Amino acid sequence: MTNPPATIDRDHLCVDEQRCEREAVWDDPFAANRDQETPFLLVSLPAVQGNVEAIRAAFPDVEVWYALKCNSDPRIAATLARLGVGFEVASPHELRLVLSLGVAADRIMCLHPIKAPAFVRQLHEAGVTRLAADSREEVEKIARFAPRSQIVVRVEVDGQGSRIPMNGKFGCSPEDTVELFRFARQRGVRPAGITIHVGSQCESLCTWAAALRTCEAVCERLAEDGSSVEIVSLGGGFPVRYTAEVPDLNSIGEVVRLASPHRFGAVGCRVTMEPGRAIVATAGTLVTSVVGTATRGGVRWVYLDAGIHHGLFEWSPAKGGLTMPITVEAEDRPLQTCRLAGPTCDSYDALPGLFDLPELRAGDRIAFHHAGAYTTSIASRFNGFDPPRTVVVGIERADCA
Amino acid sequence: MTNPPATIDRDHLCVDEQRCEREAVWDDPFAANRDQETPFLLVSLPAVQGNVEAIRAAFPDVEVWYALKCNSDPRIAATLARLGVGFEVASPHELRLVLSLGVAADRIMCLHPIKAPAFVRQLHEAGVTRLAADSREEVEKIARFAPRSQIVVRVEVDGQGSRIPMNGKFGCSPEDTVELFRFARQRGVRPAGITIHVGSQCESLCTWAAALRTCEAVCERLAEDGSSVEIVSLGGGFPVRYTAEVPDLNSIGEVVRLASPHRFGAVGCRVTMEPGRAIVATAGTLVTSVVGTATRGGVRWVYLDAGIHHGLFEWSPAKGGLTMPITVEAEDRPLQTCRLAGPTCDSYDALPGLFDLPELRAGDRIAFHHAGAYTTSIASRFNGFDPPRTVVVGIERADCA
Repeated sequence: MTNPPATIDRDHLCVDEQRCEREAVWDDPFAANRDQETPFLLVSLPAVQGNVEAIRAAFPDVEVWYALKCNSDPRIAATLARLGVGFEVASPHELRLVLSLGVAADRIMCLHPIKAPAFVRQLHEAGVTRLAADSREEVEKIARFAPRSQIVVRVEVDGQGSRIPMNGKFGCSPEDTVELFRFARQRGVRPAGITIHVGSQCESLCTWAAALRTCEAVCERLAEDGSSVEIVSLGGGFPVRYTAEVPDLNSIGEVVRLASPHRFGAVGCRVTMEPGRAIVATAGTLVTSVVGTATRGGVRWVYLDAGIHHGLFEWSPAKGGLTMPITVEAEDRPLQTCRLAGPTCDSYDALPGLFDLPELRAGDRIAFHHAGAYTTSIASRFNGFDPPRTVVVGIERADCA
Repeated sequence: MTNPPATIDRDHLCVDEQRCEREAVWDDPFAANRDQETPFLLVSLPAVQGNVEAIRAAFPDVEVWYALKCNSDPRIAATLARLGVGFEVASPHELRLVLSLGVAADRIMCLHPIKAPAFVRQLHEAGVTRLAADSREEVEKIARFAPRSQIVVRVEVDGQGSRIPMNGKFGCSPEDTVELFRFARQRGVRPAGITIHVGSQCESLCTWAAALRTCEAVCERLAEDGSSVEIVSLGGGFPVRYTAEVPDLNSIGEVVRLASPHRFGAVGCRVTMEPGRAIVATAGTLVTSVVGTATRGGVRWVYLDAGIHHGLFEWSPAKGGLTMPITVEAEDRPLQTCRLAGPTCDSYDALPGLFDLPELRAGDRIAFHHAGAYTTSIASRFNGFDPPRTVVVGIERADCA
């Protein structure tokens, strides 16, 4: 159900394969969930809620909007909607999903700087008015297909220290930002503010500080040019502690607090953030099974029913090289050094490096923790294997049919 | 329809979104297919047939089996079934697909060396008897869940010169192969032969020659050990000419002819090949649209509605770094140097390098040729964008509802 149909029936929100999701258990991914076929992503909705509360506590003056791309399960989205979180959407599918959940248009924005013309029209028709742009072409497109929109200009910031930097593909220089504000006004659309993205899983506090200095500088230049900045969107990139220490949310919150809101210029400037990973990563556990083992040249290989193509794409060195905490069902067995590989015929479908894990055999289960973000959403069906199902825990009674 | 439901209704084979696929046109991907929404993979079934005929001509004594993982569209599979091509399946989904097309069990084999126990049982229940293994554990699994099977042992060969080498994750050394034949007999399953894989898109004739020498050497050792080799499977890896010269099929066929069949040992040894790419790559054209453009630091960026995550995964340097021939709709415009990027928010979703293409604007269409293999099959739904639809040309009247 990771990729739900265009129209979501609220009656179906809590039903996965004809059973109520409340039967799943969060704190014991193995024995208590033995009846769930692997691979599955176990998601705790209370943990999602806890993450939102922690973010709000760390960023008290900042509005929280969820970057849906990171995990678009409708039950997660429904939970976030109940918590008053807004939604950042990147595609027609994501827009339809949140509309089908009854989310009001003023709680939806699109920060994707390059949108298909048809999507811009759909956003406009749905009443979504806050759209990103970072080029004259996109401003023209918005002016034509979504008049009366508010444009937030994507400003390029340094992505050093991020696992997946976002530089190059998107973003305006400060000079171009000022110019694009003018151009938007010429075209009859309202330049409303700026948005940044420090890169996904940004592990450097200095990068955050530098990005906020860039925001301040851009806001100053815009003010000098006579533009008022109504919104500063901080984007995503708030890091999750996987297996290594990262700056905690409170530290990043402190950096933001030092910069905002008054230093962004105009009184009344709203500051928003659009986390994805920070909301759902630690609320998800990917549970997989060992399908086979082999010893090759003295190296133990353990093959799982999920891998790079089916949930663990961010482990690939080209795409972040993240490493998640791993636990196994058979903890009492002696440790063995092994390689972990996915279920496909593809040699790329193997996790880098060696792991010291209790000896694993076919049928054993192994869990990847903090796997709620960018797992099911980026999985393919390569070799004919489905992406992991999503099984949720703690759904509200009101949503249960 | 790339990932069809478990049961395929033959009545639906030629219907894509309520229209007969014969309305699509192969030799003009642009104007003549303007009514097809992008992105779509245009597949010519006559071209598929032509590729099979060319392969059979180049490898006259070798049986052709299709590696379904490369493109599992049921209309392609149905065409291949009609041509008497067998099927190499890697997952329960692929097995169900070919069974639903009425393919007989003796025209199906599974060369994936590590299979989930449940899949081994399903293969057995379906009557599929030829299964790969490359470890004692897998032989035990087959003996338990699929008794009376014929095992082909995956022998490791050098993958140098392949875009995606297959070494490490799979394969036995020659010594281990002999040992695994003995072990299989002890466990009551029949060791029937060997299988290799030189790696996907193997562009070196020397690698082919070396792999065949390895096969010969292994067959000799097996014969000395009293084992008869009934089958030698050459796997896939037969290269396609994308934008650079590669060895042609006849040259590789000549290398195979020099080695087989008598030099593989026993009289009556069957030689099979399991191409995927060589059958469908040149029969497919991925047609995409420009959704936006921008100029950043003097570089022109062109954003398409398909990219690394939605069809062009093999362009990523970590995964082959292939480059396909590109044509654009507006050929008469002046050339412009640009970068090409996919539709997602992800900076990884951009094609490496710069392209000199006629100036592109939003709404223009751009085609990636020879895109029939590993495009839709490896695409994800990241950002909520669907994988490209597959539109086929030249379907047999008999299959039309």
